[in-house]
Amino acid sequence: MISNEMLQLGTKRSVIREIFEYGKIRAGEIGAENVYDFSLGNPNVPAPECVKEALLELLNSNDSNVLHSYTSAQGDAGVRKTIADSINERFGTNVTANHIYMTVGAAASLCICAKALTMPGDEFITFAPFFPEYRVFVESVGAKLKVVPVNTDNFQIDFKSFKALLSPNTKAIIMNSPNNPSGVVYSEETVKELCSILEEKSKEYNHPIYLISDEPYREIVYDNIKVPYLMNYYKNTLVCYSYSKSLSLPGERIGYIAVSDQMEDGGNMYAAICGAGRALGYVCAPSLFQFVIQKCIGATSDINAYKENRDILYNGLTKFGYDCVRPDGAFYLFVKALEEDANAFCEKAKKYELLLVPGDDFGCPGYVRVSYCVKQSQIVNSLPAFEKLIQEYQA
Amino acid sequence: MISNEMLQLGTKRSVIREIFEYGKIRAGEIGAENVYDFSLGNPNVPAPECVKEALLELLNSNDSNVLHSYTSAQGDAGVRKTIADSINERFGTNVTANHIYMTVGAAASLCICAKALTMPGDEFITFAPFFPEYRVFVESVGAKLKVVPVNTDNFQIDFKSFKALLSPNTKAIIMNSPNNPSGVVYSEETVKELCSILEEKSKEYNHPIYLISDEPYREIVYDNIKVPYLMNYYKNTLVCYSYSKSLSLPGERIGYIAVSDQMEDGGNMYAAICGAGRALGYVCAPSLFQFVIQKCIGATSDINAYKENRDILYNGLTKFGYDCVRPDGAFYLFVKALEEDANAFCEKAKKYELLLVPGDDFGCPGYVRVSYCVKQSQIVNSLPAFEKLIQEYQA
Repeated sequence: MISNEMLQLGTKRSVIREIFEYGKIRAGEIGAENVYDFSLGNPNVPAPECVKEALLELLNSNDSNVLHSYTSAQGDAGVRKTIADSINERFGTNVTANHIYMTVGAAASLCICAKALTMPGDEFITFAPFFPEYRVFVESVGAKLKVVPVNTDNFQIDFKSFKALLSPNTKAIIMNSPNNPSGVVYSEETVKELCSILEEKSKEYNHPIYLISDEPYREIVYDNIKVPYLMNYYKNTLVCYSYSKSLSLPGERIGYIAVSDQMEDGGNMYAAICGAGRALGYVCAPSLFQFVIQKCIGATSDINAYKENRDILYNGLTKFGYDCVRPDGAFYLFVKALEEDANAFCEKAKKYELLLVPGDDFGCPGYVRVSYCVKQSQIVNSLPAFEKLIQEYQA
Repeated sequence: MISNEMLQLGTKRSVIREIFEYGKIRAGEIGAENVYDFSLGNPNVPAPECVKEALLELLNSNDSNVLHSYTSAQGDAGVRKTIADSINERFGTNVTANHIYMTVGAAASLCICAKALTMPGDEFITFAPFFPEYRVFVESVGAKLKVVPVNTDNFQIDFKSFKALLSPNTKAIIMNSPNNPSGVVYSEETVKELCSILEEKSKEYNHPIYLISDEPYREIVYDNIKVPYLMNYYKNTLVCYSYSKSLSLPGERIGYIAVSDQMEDGGNMYAAICGAGRALGYVCAPSLFQFVIQKCIGATSDINAYKENRDILYNGLTKFGYDCVRPDGAFYLFVKALEEDANAFCEKAKKYELLLVPGDDFGCPGYVRVSYCVKQSQIVNSLPAFEKLIQEYQA
């Protein structure tokens, strides 16, 4: 008599969580230092010092009613203005506070956008490999998720497959760059081609196709790689941002949706986002952390720590003979499994205490995700295990 | 091409918000001290000192990764145990950490319960007067909300009307005690009769009817009034709690769902709640405030300030000749309008700078809500205005 769909969602633990739980048990058996757990995307780099400073300053100089009262549903106006100004400064846009809607993190941002957009029969399209919860969020509001198969040449977009999935029912595209799990940044060339197709098809279907840019990893990029800001390429863009990774605050659930200032009918889109937030029970984003974000605007955690991790891991694994795309951002390495079945490969890796996540749930069988947002010592110490694993296959 | 339903929800400002915005404009014109704004339920009593102490202690003695990382989706296990123990101590129940699911406030609690329960064709029933967002939350998951008309004799339940609304499609009842907007606490007699009907009808329909107890005002009661803990009267109870009012933290969005330890198939219910939280994009409740709640367990804001407000306002208004039920809890006075149309009455009240909320949206036309979670001076200073208003009608 309860919703079977929700029961299934709540009962079927994600593969990532299963591996993480196994890792905790195994750590109890042989010591945490001997288990190489690469399963979770939980940042290990601390929040920047400004977060604690901002919290202390706010607590010591404001009444509790100022800090902890309801903000307006779309977020505190001053906080939204600070964020809008920062976006404009960095990307040359013209957004205002009234294009910014504060959310309870990236998952909330995506759910709210999906709810605001969806009408019966609507379809969303995303690109493999993709964050598995996209399917949950999209299906939860009654829409359908279609997945463009992976292009393993370079993990950019396979446009032929993409075009084949477009239809008059296509409501929006969800793009994630830097990408979880591949670590790839979609190039400007890719973005331009994507946007040109969307322009053309929007005209052909006589309705806009929206572009949802899910970018919690925007700040986590290496070697001065530029991540194109999609608003500058496509007017019907919604940016879903979260501070979970950039400020190492995943538990605080704070982020925003930015509506392009060029969007057709953008005022109504913003209103529908407000309506969707209300319908999903999001009264406002956590107030104290809204003010923290304002004070820490422009700050990030120590990205260099992730870059060092990437270099050690990528160089080590490719030297051993592993095949993987060099990640330009995020903190994941996406490695070709050494046999067709990535699940079987992950089981073999466990013998060497390596906990990896099969790519199947990311829409990319035959690959595994290695989360390197871990202590550097874990990466260094795990390399001999990775070497033994490949040697087993080469034997 | 965006959801018209969401657009409507986002465009149509709630009546309460309209009045609040008017009040801000009016305050700019004639000075805030001359506007008697009784529109919002935003606690004005500060958070208890333990909140700031807990925040400082947490910040000064923990790494940021401890404070700000993802907790498990259902909330930190230690926090949930502390809450379960506190519930058991106060109400003699036997809940464990695994009956508690931490949420992003009461609205999230209600949305998650509705999503976890709803199957096509389901109906929810609530009692007028009721919090208007119930309709938004229930309809958002595809269910229907039926409303039992108000019993203006004593604002308890009109059981004859209630029975007439029950049907095999009834999935759950939403009850709110102490009640927003009447301030009434449903008596033990009322609760017992309600639960006996639910037992009987569950048997007749051969499926459980769930009882959702929305109780953000549980701690805000006066004169040692007891608010029956519904789990002790009915096994299929879900308690939706929020710390917004009891700790004056409405902006922080922190609360929980408690599943009765006696519930039939309670394990599956808890799993469906986890699934619904996931489907709605609630990754976890804000982590730092989970730990604050644990440290402040049992604390409340200064309830006595609200009691003093109630006494001054209730005594003043009834002396002038207003008709209203004496509130035993929450911080609202529900007053009979002096003409049939409460909206017209509120317009007249505006002439005296009194900002009241018509009861229509609460399912109770002909009444107005007066939120007395305001400074005591506002109440005292507003009394002559209330007197002039009633004199206008008596003239």
